[in-house]
Amino acid sequence: MSHSPSSPDTKFMSTDALREHWQGHRRLTRRVIEAFPDDQLFTHSVGGMRTFGEMANELLAMAAPMAQGLATGEWEAYSPEAVSTKADLLRLWDESTAEIDEFWTAIPERRFGETITSFGQYTGPVHWQLLYVIDNEVHHRAQGYVYLRALGVEPPPFYQRD
Amino acid sequence: MSHSPSSPDTKFMSTDALREHWQGHRRLTRRVIEAFPDDQLFTHSVGGMRTFGEMANELLAMAAPMAQGLATGEWEAYSPEAVSTKADLLRLWDESTAEIDEFWTAIPERRFGETITSFGQYTGPVHWQLLYVIDNEVHHRAQGYVYLRALGVEPPPFYQRD
Repeated sequence: MSHSPSSPDTKFMSTDALREHWQGHRRLTRRVIEAFPDDQLFTHSVGGMRTFGEMANELLAMAAPMAQGLATGEWEAYSPEAVSTKADLLRLWDESTAEIDEFWTAIPERRFGETITSFGQYTGPVHWQLLYVIDNEVHHRAQGYVYLRALGVEPPPFYQRD
Repeated sequence: MSHSPSSPDTKFMSTDALREHWQGHRRLTRRVIEAFPDDQLFTHSVGGMRTFGEMANELLAMAAPMAQGLATGEWEAYSPEAVSTKADLLRLWDESTAEIDEFWTAIPERRFGETITSFGQYTGPVHWQLLYVIDNEVHHRAQGYVYLRALGVEPPPFYQRD
């Protein structure tokens, strides 16, 4: 076994692998949206929290706009479209999936080494920006898992990302 | 603005940044454990799911053993110690925090480019292995957030990682 220690310059993963990781999470979140009964997605909640439909709408407001900002340097106002049906939510979800892939190829390579301010207020390294968006999705999706269990619905397996 | 597109070799983040990202999540999860009333951590749940104490115990069984496996190539059996009090859980949490940091410095640099089998059964690139452990923690911690809300307890802020 090699004994060379890792250094501050050691690559953890490639940007391509991160995009695939992100879209894998988004495919799972899409399945969680689909798993909700239509009449519960924007009405059911636990502990006085928001509905999963509202949470998913917040995720939409962060995902493609993040990719767009990293590609163009322009940060769209953080105002999700009003959505109140599963069909509309899934349609917007699929549109943002395509937008992320399109903007991703336009992100300059050097961007990933930069510290930037996103949406006019959040300052940090680009990897931090992207992981925050992904982690926030995993966080709220997991809350959707509890909502589904409370409704007696079996959620999709956590490990399935294809 | 540069127009050079990113390539499959572009670094998303360093291994050092990933370790700090991971430990930041673990600091937040520790605060979520602390936020539970002592008598609810191993009894309260929603929707027939496991208690948050049981989930946190699962996280302990994956975290330091993952770092150890990456450093040494030896994978300890996946059997968490039986824990039933908040004090014991926090003590084990802090011990694993130190173990992760110690094993991390012993992970050979080339490991991060490898595809490995962890715990005798999960095969994938090393970045996938580590992100799975972190994502699984974010996932279960978020379920703890719902449990806390259902108990009328304000959870710690998601963005606080220090």
